[in-house]
Amino acid sequence: MRDQCARCAKQLQDAITERLVDLDGTRFQEDVWQRPGGGGGRTRVLADGGLFERAGVNFSEVHGEFNEELASSLPGEGREFFATGMSLVLHPANPRVPTVHANFRYIERSGAWWFGGGADLTPYCLYEEDVRHFHEVWRQACDRHDSEYYPRFKKWCDEYFYLPHRKETRGVGGIFFDHLTGDRDAIFAFWRDVGAAFLDSYIPIVERRQDEAPSEEERRFQLLRRGRYVEFNLMYDRGTVFGLRTDGRIESILMSLPPLVRWEYDVRWPAGSPQAELLDVLQHPRDWLGIESEA
Amino acid sequence: MRDQCARCAKQLQDAITERLVDLDGTRFQEDVWQRPGGGGGRTRVLADGGLFERAGVNFSEVHGEFNEELASSLPGEGREFFATGMSLVLHPANPRVPTVHANFRYIERSGAWWFGGGADLTPYCLYEEDVRHFHEVWRQACDRHDSEYYPRFKKWCDEYFYLPHRKETRGVGGIFFDHLTGDRDAIFAFWRDVGAAFLDSYIPIVERRQDEAPSEEERRFQLLRRGRYVEFNLMYDRGTVFGLRTDGRIESILMSLPPLVRWEYDVRWPAGSPQAELLDVLQHPRDWLGIESEA
Repeated sequence: MRDQCARCAKQLQDAITERLVDLDGTRFQEDVWQRPGGGGGRTRVLADGGLFERAGVNFSEVHGEFNEELASSLPGEGREFFATGMSLVLHPANPRVPTVHANFRYIERSGAWWFGGGADLTPYCLYEEDVRHFHEVWRQACDRHDSEYYPRFKKWCDEYFYLPHRKETRGVGGIFFDHLTGDRDAIFAFWRDVGAAFLDSYIPIVERRQDEAPSEEERRFQLLRRGRYVEFNLMYDRGTVFGLRTDGRIESILMSLPPLVRWEYDVRWPAGSPQAELLDVLQHPRDWLGIESEA
Repeated sequence: MRDQCARCAKQLQDAITERLVDLDGTRFQEDVWQRPGGGGGRTRVLADGGLFERAGVNFSEVHGEFNEELASSLPGEGREFFATGMSLVLHPANPRVPTVHANFRYIERSGAWWFGGGADLTPYCLYEEDVRHFHEVWRQACDRHDSEYYPRFKKWCDEYFYLPHRKETRGVGGIFFDHLTGDRDAIFAFWRDVGAAFLDSYIPIVERRQDEAPSEEERRFQLLRRGRYVEFNLMYDRGTVFGLRTDGRIESILMSLPPLVRWEYDVRWPAGSPQAELLDVLQHPRDWLGIESEA
């Protein structure tokens, strides 16, 4: 299963970077690295592209021993671990195109194992059709395996990507799951399929928005919202904390941070402005597909 | 003592903002706020000034009850607390002028009390005479009270403003002290005097550098180093964590974050470049005043 998952994560990295190069017209810089404690990875970064201000797509397969602090903060027993996965964060230059993050991982700990993953969208301009498209692709990918997955993982995503000090979600969600265990072959098949759904969830949105011309105010709002992205990743994100605590490769972990970011003091947006409308959605996560009312 | 410290912190805020307005030519925006759980503060922010891209100078006097998490992470017993202090972070636009942070606070917890504080400098271009000047002012202020203070608080500062994942200090240090308790009048006098030394430690450096013209590369380096500032404040800074966990006013706490910040993937500076030289200093804190060799 270790090899199967690592191969799958690596192939997904290949398929995604290939498609992104087509779209952006710029090549990725690839760094192959080894982790001193065991394993390594393949980091691919594209900077100042035609479309992406920064795109990072990372594969890693690491193993070794948890330190004491991390050992006590994760489920299960024992210090020995194995982890493989693919993670990406795409930061488009144009604020009309949303930022996206996805991560698919398989973890073993002293005999126990689980899958985790998900994808979530962070728009700077709210296009409801884009958000519905994104959620619809994830719903379909989930429904092919278990009709309870999408509602459960959609909710988990809203809860996970939440900044308590801002009382806001990071974006408009998607799906998030962790510690998924049980029938290993069935869960592996689900995990592989949701990974494969990534391009369908995001590329049509990019194609729809990439030629739109943003205003200066939309750009400023994008840089300010990227500040929230940084706050979430440095303060709350499990992947970041996991990476830093397992002596991961710093540059591969922090490639999730946006290229250019603003913080301003006490910014407020006029009621009725597109920015205020988006903030309202982040403060009150929506049921984009009308799932809850169906149930 | 509560009133004495609060008055002292408030007067210091007045003296510093007055001098900064003279220097910058721009007025501060003042927000007076109340904390729902008890107390409040006076936040002053100057944005896009002649000299400062952002300057924040904050006074607060808050009291109430610690939540359980914070209660167990601080020294002492009991949940009841009182805290007052002045904190500032000045982010100049010109990378030849260093960023500075200072904080002076008095805390009581269920009968126990302590003082904390310090000031530290974060340059983007290394001028050794500026760093020595900064340290010299703090040494003199400390020496007037206890000759052991400066060496001890200089070392503490290097240890406190350290980013483990980067293996670097945030800047070139200064002084840092916390949980200082004992003879309350003597410690109060020391605390008041170091607060009053702030302007002497920093203003001469600003006056010396403010008219120098930086290169584009120095500006880029400044934005990248500001990224480290963000990493430190969000991941490690006690004041930030304390503020967020006591339901402090978010905008007053996070005004320490720089206005514009860059992250780039795996940036390296050629050996012998001014940037590489500064990084070397951050990786190997120096004994700026030759104190250790004297001892």
